[in-house]
Amino acid sequence: MEADLAEYLDEFTRRDWETLEPGAVTGPVRVAVVGLGWFAREWALPGIARSAYTEATVVTDIDENAVEAVAAGRDLTGVTPEEFRSGAVADAYDAVYVATPNATHLEYVEAAAAQGKAVLCEKPLEATLDRARRLVAACRDADVPLMVGYRMQTDPAARRLRDLVAAGVAGDVVHVHATMSQTMLGELDGDADQWRLDPELSGGCAAMDLGVYPLNTTRFALGADPVRVSGRTRSEHEAFAGVDEHATFRLEFPDDVDALCSVSQNAQHASRLEVTGTEARLILDPAFYEREDRGFAVVRDGTRVDVDFDQVHQIEEEFAYFGHQLLADEPFHPDGEHALADMRALDGVYESAEAGRPVALGDDTE
Amino acid sequence: MEADLAEYLDEFTRRDWETLEPGAVTGPVRVAVVGLGWFAREWALPGIARSAYTEATVVTDIDENAVEAVAAGRDLTGVTPEEFRSGAVADAYDAVYVATPNATHLEYVEAAAAQGKAVLCEKPLEATLDRARRLVAACRDADVPLMVGYRMQTDPAARRLRDLVAAGVAGDVVHVHATMSQTMLGELDGDADQWRLDPELSGGCAAMDLGVYPLNTTRFALGADPVRVSGRTRSEHEAFAGVDEHATFRLEFPDDVDALCSVSQNAQHASRLEVTGTEARLILDPAFYEREDRGFAVVRDGTRVDVDFDQVHQIEEEFAYFGHQLLADEPFHPDGEHALADMRALDGVYESAEAGRPVALGDDTE
Repeated sequence: MEADLAEYLDEFTRRDWETLEPGAVTGPVRVAVVGLGWFAREWALPGIARSAYTEATVVTDIDENAVEAVAAGRDLTGVTPEEFRSGAVADAYDAVYVATPNATHLEYVEAAAAQGKAVLCEKPLEATLDRARRLVAACRDADVPLMVGYRMQTDPAARRLRDLVAAGVAGDVVHVHATMSQTMLGELDGDADQWRLDPELSGGCAAMDLGVYPLNTTRFALGADPVRVSGRTRSEHEAFAGVDEHATFRLEFPDDVDALCSVSQNAQHASRLEVTGTEARLILDPAFYEREDRGFAVVRDGTRVDVDFDQVHQIEEEFAYFGHQLLADEPFHPDGEHALADMRALDGVYESAEAGRPVALGDDTE
Repeated sequence: MEADLAEYLDEFTRRDWETLEPGAVTGPVRVAVVGLGWFAREWALPGIARSAYTEATVVTDIDENAVEAVAAGRDLTGVTPEEFRSGAVADAYDAVYVATPNATHLEYVEAAAAQGKAVLCEKPLEATLDRARRLVAACRDADVPLMVGYRMQTDPAARRLRDLVAAGVAGDVVHVHATMSQTMLGELDGDADQWRLDPELSGGCAAMDLGVYPLNTTRFALGADPVRVSGRTRSEHEAFAGVDEHATFRLEFPDDVDALCSVSQNAQHASRLEVTGTEARLILDPAFYEREDRGFAVVRDGTRVDVDFDQVHQIEEEFAYFGHQLLADEPFHPDGEHALADMRALDGVYESAEAGRPVALGDDTE
């Protein structure tokens, strides 16, 4: 028993998906980074560099100055979006990471697919369900692998939580609470002109940008997809006039297990997921932000165990998984079909909020 | 500033409702305890004894052995329910505390009102909204004061949380999460025959018995009442065949502030309330059980303050408030009208669960 615990702790941050011997990799996957916003600069490029399975070779953005600044500092090839789409430097990369505003994912993924490149696309997959379907179809038709950037799925804390659920340690799951909030205007340099506030570019704000974390992480933890949703959205601050500033939604999973979720772009920072089962409670708090350490706790009867583990660089883990699976010729768990289930749920949240009643979710079989 | 903090901590558990000088009270309110179940024996009778403003004088229950055992051990007058209702020993008490199964509150409150006695009735007020209305009307018609046993409302942690919301420390409230669960069959001696499992006596199980805590404490914290609810209930274990074993509900407050609540009679013990505002998060965890210490935390930006205060005997506080307000001739905050708002909300939760859509809540003006 004690030996098992020691082994459990030793293995907590182990990459359980890693099957390649590190020495077996002769060359990393070369990645073109499309979109050089804050996240790409501060997190994706460092993550790609840290990961042994990836290296960045090409960068592009509609902002020429950003391309120049990033390319010069890192010895990368900087190109315009037109040059990228034309395939002019396609020999310089094996895969494409798309981190542009949601409504522009499709055009870049279509270009990458046409070039026969593997794709890692940020979530949510696109600004609308229809465009997301087209994005997935483009990769399928071109037979290029598509992974979607659910960085929680390669985080050890989320994986260990999923393991505990799958092993029955929580017993039957009874319900889930999840919340994610931030003061977006404050935390992101007060940029009230940013694309997340433009419904054409984003497809929505609180539910689309933040809601996808409670939604997808709950799906991942339970190994199940919601069958019905009930959503509510609202906006008060003038900056959010065209989009949802706050949202709450209930995800109804099979067997009537409910996840109660709240998200806000204008509330005190919070980030928490709790799975309550008949046999234990599993808590991630903090849960969702790349810039905070993850907390991991298991509560059973009167005993609470907080696991204080070596925190990973979450984006390194994500890109390591991306590169590893490509090099090992293994599939991605968060693939296009997986991501479409989130898009259907988010679409349902907005439809439900508009209609004032729950909305049943179909699948994508046509 | 530092002096303010010291004063705040000193005053944390102060009875802000207490206006009488302790020496000014010549005799405590004499209480008849109706219903001698686990809670009355283990919590209410000790609470009444600890409170300087109350003393128990009479006890009754349909179980003659329980009456005999309790009365003998504490030098109380034990009577049968028939004797109690007849008023045979009415000279021995000033007030009546009703802690019987929900569906029998009405008959005892009607008897107390007919005797002109003040009433402290356990929550939920009755098994159905209609009977709860009759209960409130009986006290109103007889002009006897009615308090409802929301013990959280006299708990210092809940009061300080309410104070912070009222003072604007949390900013605008954005949303609330609340959860309360227990393994009822395990924690209550595995008594699968108990009245809470009988829908005729209880009016419901998870939402009625537990849901009233997240519901009422959120109302108390926000100083507002829900205008619409969306509820879901389910039962799996055979013991809960006639009632709700699990429930989730969304309370929609004015300005579209949502409280997301979950309760279960068959899940790991949990007890938590979190108010997320634009300026701070306020957390009670543990929150709701009389048998656990309350946790109290305020989180603002990167700073979290946990207030570790002298825990009170929650039921002593409740009865002290009851006795004090009667002796001071002051009204009760959790009065009959206040409790009817909970009954309307709970009725709405069950109606919503049945109908599969949200239900608007009216008020009781006819």
